[in-house]
Amino acid sequence: MIIAFVGTAGSGKTALTGAFGRYLEENHKVAYVNLDTGVKTLPYKPDLDVRDSVTVEEIMKEGYGPNGAIVESYDRLMEEFDHYLNLILRLDEKNDYVLIDTPGQMETFLFHEFGVKLMENLPYPLVVYLSDPEILKKPHDYCFVRFFALLIDLRLGATTIPALNKVDLLGREELERHKRMFEDIEYLTARLKLDPSTQGLLAYKMCSMLPEVSPPVRVIYLSAKTGEGFEELETLAYEHYCTCGDLT
Amino acid sequence: MIIAFVGTAGSGKTALTGAFGRYLEENHKVAYVNLDTGVKTLPYKPDLDVRDSVTVEEIMKEGYGPNGAIVESYDRLMEEFDHYLNLILRLDEKNDYVLIDTPGQMETFLFHEFGVKLMENLPYPLVVYLSDPEILKKPHDYCFVRFFALLIDLRLGATTIPALNKVDLLGREELERHKRMFEDIEYLTARLKLDPSTQGLLAYKMCSMLPEVSPPVRVIYLSAKTGEGFEELETLAYEHYCTCGDLT
Repeated sequence: MIIAFVGTAGSGKTALTGAFGRYLEENHKVAYVNLDTGVKTLPYKPDLDVRDSVTVEEIMKEGYGPNGAIVESYDRLMEEFDHYLNLILRLDEKNDYVLIDTPGQMETFLFHEFGVKLMENLPYPLVVYLSDPEILKKPHDYCFVRFFALLIDLRLGATTIPALNKVDLLGREELERHKRMFEDIEYLTARLKLDPSTQGLLAYKMCSMLPEVSPPVRVIYLSAKTGEGFEELETLAYEHYCTCGDLT
Repeated sequence: MIIAFVGTAGSGKTALTGAFGRYLEENHKVAYVNLDTGVKTLPYKPDLDVRDSVTVEEIMKEGYGPNGAIVESYDRLMEEFDHYLNLILRLDEKNDYVLIDTPGQMETFLFHEFGVKLMENLPYPLVVYLSDPEILKKPHDYCFVRFFALLIDLRLGATTIPALNKVDLLGREELERHKRMFEDIEYLTARLKLDPSTQGLLAYKMCSMLPEVSPPVRVIYLSAKTGEGFEELETLAYEHYCTCGDLT
């Protein structure tokens, strides 16, 4: 089974890859893949590491700025695309789980051919889209996260589970508030209806459509620190592979 | 009027800010704002430049990796948030147009408090979401771009125009094909219906809802090289300020 952790820089992909991997290793064979050309240190031992081919810092030494160097690093990885694809496929054969830690900047994975083509060529990868609770301030933001997960699904052609990460940082009431906004769509749309702005109307319309348009995917709540949600994620991954996508 | 160019690294924000600014300067007073802490050189003279406070390369010298340094640079800019906001508001008073060149990595602007709070506090900013034609390969991708523009609108609370950039690189037939996919939603949904995969169904459902959910926004076609679309963008910006959002 292949699980890819996707999220913005700072959303906790790398820490989660390490912690979830250690959890799985208690009962399973696990391989780790690092696709981040810009990461400095990893909390796991990668079985495959794109930094063996290229790093952002090397490219910056050639005179590139950081943004250009990030893009350029994946342009160069494209030359070895088949090599990396085959290595991941081989790891998948030899292990129960392959955990993929995706590029630091999420957009590199979603917009660059390297990420899109890789996901299209892997067998039934499951994507976990990590959000930092910090970005959830207004009712709009929950709608944003739910639709962002749908766009990742659409772009990568892979079932995508929205996950709230770092829940250890939240108080109990705060977590319950987040859960209600994510899970009770009627409650969320009722809140959105109170906002008379153009964007309030847009959010209301989009969210009202969510039950109809979205695959039946649950939001999960994770912590690399406490291991919260790991059992649920393992179960979801297992169901994903057995039913090919129905995560009701 | 405030116009912000948003897009992934490499989508051409900076070149377009410069070229569109030069076009506007023929008849208007124009100010330029650079919000990219990672850019090396600019093709315009910024009236406000966040690199005066902090650059990604400086932070990397403290030991950060490139991804961490990008996030950290905007964390530090938050300390001067009011200062920057006030400067932009003053530029807006003194000029006909303020053009904002946003961070190299789009997600920095969409997910970091700096970008979100800034846009919320500016008067009626118009966002132009630039896509590189390179990312348009399958019918799904057009649906992805249209919804991504909606998510930017939702997140930043600002009317967002989807724009295909670098159209000078496209042959005439290719451009016409892109235009048809963007503008003829019935044609696009008919194409999506042919895809029997889970993601095909998702794209079909999402796209079918587009006419109902989306504000009446046209896609525009731009080139920093030839100036294509500049007149249309100027008209749209003008209409946006006169009608507060209705870009039918």
